[in-house]
Amino acid sequence: MRNITVGELRSASLSQLKEICEEIRQEIFQTVSVCGGHLSSNLGVVELTVGLHRVFDFPKDKIVFDVGHQCYTHKLLSGRADRFHTLRQQGGLSGFPKREESAYDCYDTGHAGTAISAALGLAKARDLKGEEFSVIALVGDGSFNNGLIFEALNSLHILDTNILIVLNDNGMSISPTVGGTHDVLTEMKEGESPCEDVALFERFGLTYMGAVNGNDLSALLPALEQAKQGLKKGSILLHVVTKKGQGFPFCENAPMQTHGISPKSGMSEYSTALGEELSAIAKENDKIVAVTAAMTDSLGLRPFFDAYPERAFDVGICEEHASILCAALAAGGMKPYYAIYSTFLQRAFDEIIHDVCGQNLPVTFCIDRAGVTGADGETHQGVFDLSYLSFIPNLTVAIPKNIAEFRLMLRKSAEYPFPLAIRYPREGTEGTASEFEFGKFEVLHSTMSDILIYAAGERCIRLAEEIRERTLKGNVDVTIVNARFLRPVDSQMILSRHENTVVTLEDNVKVGGLGDAVARVLRNSGKRVLSYGFDDTFLPHGDCNDLRDRFGLNPDAIAEDLLRYACR
Amino acid sequence: MRNITVGELRSASLSQLKEICEEIRQEIFQTVSVCGGHLSSNLGVVELTVGLHRVFDFPKDKIVFDVGHQCYTHKLLSGRADRFHTLRQQGGLSGFPKREESAYDCYDTGHAGTAISAALGLAKARDLKGEEFSVIALVGDGSFNNGLIFEALNSLHILDTNILIVLNDNGMSISPTVGGTHDVLTEMKEGESPCEDVALFERFGLTYMGAVNGNDLSALLPALEQAKQGLKKGSILLHVVTKKGQGFPFCENAPMQTHGISPKSGMSEYSTALGEELSAIAKENDKIVAVTAAMTDSLGLRPFFDAYPERAFDVGICEEHASILCAALAAGGMKPYYAIYSTFLQRAFDEIIHDVCGQNLPVTFCIDRAGVTGADGETHQGVFDLSYLSFIPNLTVAIPKNIAEFRLMLRKSAEYPFPLAIRYPREGTEGTASEFEFGKFEVLHSTMSDILIYAAGERCIRLAEEIRERTLKGNVDVTIVNARFLRPVDSQMILSRHENTVVTLEDNVKVGGLGDAVARVLRNSGKRVLSYGFDDTFLPHGDCNDLRDRFGLNPDAIAEDLLRYACR
Repeated sequence: MRNITVGELRSASLSQLKEICEEIRQEIFQTVSVCGGHLSSNLGVVELTVGLHRVFDFPKDKIVFDVGHQCYTHKLLSGRADRFHTLRQQGGLSGFPKREESAYDCYDTGHAGTAISAALGLAKARDLKGEEFSVIALVGDGSFNNGLIFEALNSLHILDTNILIVLNDNGMSISPTVGGTHDVLTEMKEGESPCEDVALFERFGLTYMGAVNGNDLSALLPALEQAKQGLKKGSILLHVVTKKGQGFPFCENAPMQTHGISPKSGMSEYSTALGEELSAIAKENDKIVAVTAAMTDSLGLRPFFDAYPERAFDVGICEEHASILCAALAAGGMKPYYAIYSTFLQRAFDEIIHDVCGQNLPVTFCIDRAGVTGADGETHQGVFDLSYLSFIPNLTVAIPKNIAEFRLMLRKSAEYPFPLAIRYPREGTEGTASEFEFGKFEVLHSTMSDILIYAAGERCIRLAEEIRERTLKGNVDVTIVNARFLRPVDSQMILSRHENTVVTLEDNVKVGGLGDAVARVLRNSGKRVLSYGFDDTFLPHGDCNDLRDRFGLNPDAIAEDLLRYACR
Repeated sequence: MRNITVGELRSASLSQLKEICEEIRQEIFQTVSVCGGHLSSNLGVVELTVGLHRVFDFPKDKIVFDVGHQCYTHKLLSGRADRFHTLRQQGGLSGFPKREESAYDCYDTGHAGTAISAALGLAKARDLKGEEFSVIALVGDGSFNNGLIFEALNSLHILDTNILIVLNDNGMSISPTVGGTHDVLTEMKEGESPCEDVALFERFGLTYMGAVNGNDLSALLPALEQAKQGLKKGSILLHVVTKKGQGFPFCENAPMQTHGISPKSGMSEYSTALGEELSAIAKENDKIVAVTAAMTDSLGLRPFFDAYPERAFDVGICEEHASILCAALAAGGMKPYYAIYSTFLQRAFDEIIHDVCGQNLPVTFCIDRAGVTGADGETHQGVFDLSYLSFIPNLTVAIPKNIAEFRLMLRKSAEYPFPLAIRYPREGTEGTASEFEFGKFEVLHSTMSDILIYAAGERCIRLAEEIRERTLKGNVDVTIVNARFLRPVDSQMILSRHENTVVTLEDNVKVGGLGDAVARVLRNSGKRVLSYGFDDTFLPHGDCNDLRDRFGLNPDAIAEDLLRYACR
């Protein structure tokens, strides 16, 4: 698409602006159809972003996109239209705001609820430096469930600075937004109880404006102008109502299914197995409960929620609260399962330690999208979980070799009386699995050679097989072990094996994961330990296999290493 | 003190109840004077706790103490009075609620803001099991700043269960409570704007009751009875106003200074140096800003806050928000310092990754109370930070050898353009320090022997010296190195040293810290690496030195190991 200048935006008539919006909408739709990405969230804010770019003066003015999955129009309007076809591709535009990419991106996001805090920091820095510009936080209603928003609002008076919060209310998180805050917003939107509810925000020091139709430029532009003027006097909350998926009926009608689009590989999904198994277990065991933080469907739990609504809780984007809720449900005698993406579980790190493991409560964490996740980039890679779970007392950490083993782990987990984390990628193969004990590895392919590979999880087992194909060409066979527990690691097997060259493969950063755990057991044993995992860097967006090959898990390079050692 | 039975509480007249309160107050004061502990927070809730025990039926009914630093009266009234003199001592009563200690303690706490989530989980479990009892969350106004509270309130409708929230409003966090939520509570307390402010809570599905004087049993008892009845119909917020330190004028007048009492050792405090150095740096550099989460004084930052109020922000108990605020201040060109206790920084784990290090922003984390902290027990030990910081890309992690080196690190940090974490214990010695480069270790004591100790931080360097005293008696000397950076670790030195036995000492759990970092560098080198740190368990309350000796850092045992290896 052509780059639209700010001059063009400013001089355009309302009908010309509408044409520009249509052009942008088509561009987003076509690009996402090819590259994957966030669709409905971006379609909903086309007019709003066009309006902001017309009224404000970017990049002098600053805008922080909460989560960032609604920044495509902003990218198209800030000199990146000609590169938009590279979206989410290796070396191309990121699907999220990136300071490194453009001066128009002032703050990187990816996780929910950070934008108001960030806007406050940028605004306060501006004040302290004696500069003048506007700072805007664009936040979806789903993020308003997150505690961070209230922590930030609590700071408004303390920081004594002015920001504009644009509340983009489309009634959706990824799942529909739920809970008390949402009810308040809904009433405000519908103008039912302005006194109490507007007060919810005004007490924090915000002037409330709205609600305005954010897909109608004729209503939106004057509201944005008014907000810009109002900013001179104090902080403002502008409540904008938009339709997620606006402009494409099939998106409008299925905003959850079209929130994000990713090319299907045809492989099976672990999440499907989670929904099936948990539903089956719950049928036999009335203590089973499931908790999610606004991602019921993408985690595969819809069947469970449908079958056992009284034991299924979507608490909104509240990763910390969800963790404590599980701990307390367990303390009260229930058996909770908390399903969440690897990168988002980072939010509940303290609660895993303080609430779940500190009390040694039988909560099961089902950690989806573990390992490299690809096109969403730095903020969505699940490559730290093995490291941040490796040292938490009382916690068992499991890494299934395939979906069948994942199912078996889930079934066994129902009787497991301790905290348990099971981490798995999005996609995999069903395969087969046989009975196991917690903490015990499994030999998958045995040979008399002097090299043994401990591989954690399906992808790394496949990688081990790829490596073996290559070493076999050099007449070197290798033993492959399914290293399915990081905690407790199978010290007994590790100490008793005869191989002198021990290799570890993990879909996680190298520091702090399986490699370190195996090496710790073999310390001072005289054995050679070669650990492979991701480099000590944030992994950018790109294809999962490309990222794997470029950042430390390249089968050719590893096979070469092994052949070299085998010759010594 | 004698154990007071619930029968005695129930049959007591008002004046007898007041006598019991006085008896309890004296017991708390005397015990804390000897054992240390939380004083003013406990003195404030004596009547409230007596009232709860009279009106409710514990342990059938459940009470969750937010943070838990106000549970002493509860312990005295639940059959633990005869053991109260063992408070915070090894093997004695914990200063916090502990499920393992008593059936009256239904949920362990220590960090702020968890109680409503926990109460909801316990109540929902009760409902699902068809049981009947009341669940109470006792929460201070300081915790109401924390986002977790709003995440929990957001769930009230979703979970469809009834709990009683007792808001213990004393106007204090540890520092005075600050921010918008506090302003709302204050207005509610003073009855100024009931319509809007009561609505803040009622919108979430709570019936508001209050405010009632929580130090006046004649007002409190009927309010608690009323709340108990009301609970049958829905969830209730009972707003109770108490005086922190009630009953002891010097506590009432200095609630911050008497919040917690701990025996003074006479050593210097790192926090004093933080306040001095940061103030000195800020004089030269107008980009320096400081952020704390409700602990300005205990972190030593009062002088900075007094000297540079416009660059000093106490944002309340909002550890996550504080971290993002710092990231954004840095993105805006400022140089932020975020001072926080090690255990509480766990709350900002995702923000360290996502906001600070993901954007490679020059935020400096000043991590106080690192390592074993002693009498507060499991929830307050700072023994995980080296592990959870060890694998975060872009982060530098420093561990000063003494206060002089800490000062030097702070001065050098002002020009350091990357994320930096400096972790240190509460107390230490001033000592001396000389110029260094980031990532470089320092040889403190050199010998020709075959044993080298890498010691992280002042306590471990002292431990290394204690070990050396012991090995010298066996005619074995050791080299001691100040391992002052975990990231980047000094690979160059580690690889170039001649010693064949390499020892690591760290005031952190063994998994994931310095030992693993050094061993990673020396992997496959043929050198022997012996790593010492804390065992893979939650460290209970007790004396710091005792804990050190019992859980893995015993100088006698380590010296014995070294002598044994030296003989081989």
